[in-house]
Amino acid sequence: MSSKQPVAIVFDTFGTVVDWRGSLIADLTAFGQQRGVQADWPALIDAWRAAYHPSMDRVRKGEQPWTKLDDLHRASLDKLVAEFGINGLTEQDLVHINLGWHRLNGWPDSVPGLTRLKTRFVIGPLSNGNVSLLTYMAKHAGLPWDMVFGSDLFGHFKPDPETYLGVAKLMDLAPDQVMMAAAHNGDLANARKCGLMTAFFPRPNEYGPHQKRDYSAEQEWDIVATDIEDLATQLGV
Amino acid sequence: MSSKQPVAIVFDTFGTVVDWRGSLIADLTAFGQQRGVQADWPALIDAWRAAYHPSMDRVRKGEQPWTKLDDLHRASLDKLVAEFGINGLTEQDLVHINLGWHRLNGWPDSVPGLTRLKTRFVIGPLSNGNVSLLTYMAKHAGLPWDMVFGSDLFGHFKPDPETYLGVAKLMDLAPDQVMMAAAHNGDLANARKCGLMTAFFPRPNEYGPHQKRDYSAEQEWDIVATDIEDLATQLGV
Repeated sequence: MSSKQPVAIVFDTFGTVVDWRGSLIADLTAFGQQRGVQADWPALIDAWRAAYHPSMDRVRKGEQPWTKLDDLHRASLDKLVAEFGINGLTEQDLVHINLGWHRLNGWPDSVPGLTRLKTRFVIGPLSNGNVSLLTYMAKHAGLPWDMVFGSDLFGHFKPDPETYLGVAKLMDLAPDQVMMAAAHNGDLANARKCGLMTAFFPRPNEYGPHQKRDYSAEQEWDIVATDIEDLATQLGV
Repeated sequence: MSSKQPVAIVFDTFGTVVDWRGSLIADLTAFGQQRGVQADWPALIDAWRAAYHPSMDRVRKGEQPWTKLDDLHRASLDKLVAEFGINGLTEQDLVHINLGWHRLNGWPDSVPGLTRLKTRFVIGPLSNGNVSLLTYMAKHAGLPWDMVFGSDLFGHFKPDPETYLGVAKLMDLAPDQVMMAAAHNGDLANARKCGLMTAFFPRPNEYGPHQKRDYSAEQEWDIVATDIEDLATQLGV
């Protein structure tokens, strides 16, 4: 059991808590079959995710005013549907596909691990997703958050310090009373620069066959666990 | 069962969901006995609550910059402790007393009613309390919120429209897809002006022997219920 304990634990969400790739492949493949729309859905999804960081970086660098993730997703989707030559999609279909990010499922350990952690700690997502996306996703996946720290609360995307420090401010905590939990070493490095505690666990299948990094801890994080259930065990709950 | 259904239901909190007066009387009486501090705690608590609206109104009118409710509570407490001549309180005691607002308990129907409503609707407090106050209170009382709409997210107190409309904006909903639930007719009248749906149920013991109003519905609210369990029943869950 770790000696120092946080008051709140915030979780990166896409990849760390929910399996965005597996969930979207299942969801959109079923949708395509039902609607009779042909497409290489896994390739579309991988390209969609590849557009994620560049689209947020345009906002972070001030090249574009604040835009919530749902709207960035939609702009990227429109471009990719044209590039992939997917035909026959109505506006209603595009809305449905875009809200696929609200219908992601947790990894097998996510709900049981979070449920244990919630008994002692304030838990929430600290994600680049907007509040509505994260709240509807939590309803869908059964994620038992105490509070949803969407990026629209701060008007900033990670790794801007306003996100990590914004959680501490909203919860009346010092930065080192907040623990960032993520399957991404880069997220944790940025949280640590802001003074947060850190917990890492790997999600080696997040990107499927395209995974290239984050197989293991790259710094001495406060906790290195195998998954969220193990994080709960190491924190003594 | 009501014909039109909201997507999200937000609850006034002090008095509507939690019994602030009964909780604080029990909490501070026990604290006074334990610390050997003599005071007329019920009178202090009633005076403290009487300072609530005037203190927020100073912020709402721009006479004071944005100040979260915890800090307004503390300023009122300091003044009242002097007025009541309560002696022997340390800074640690004053912090503990002020955080009494984080330790309020639900009315008997609150947790079971909210638990039922959560199965179909997004539920959250829409309160003048700050996010930390409302989140720690939910942990204490077991309130199963999906999202905590604290006034510090909007930088406004109710009845400013930024609060009611802020929920709709954060949740990507039209105002009439959000229902305000409260034991206070005035709160509902202001929510209705912003286009929200409305639900009333009375809390005739909120102010103990000092209750003067809100024994019954004063407009034709969308739903008039006896309590939160009955609200769930009327919404068909």
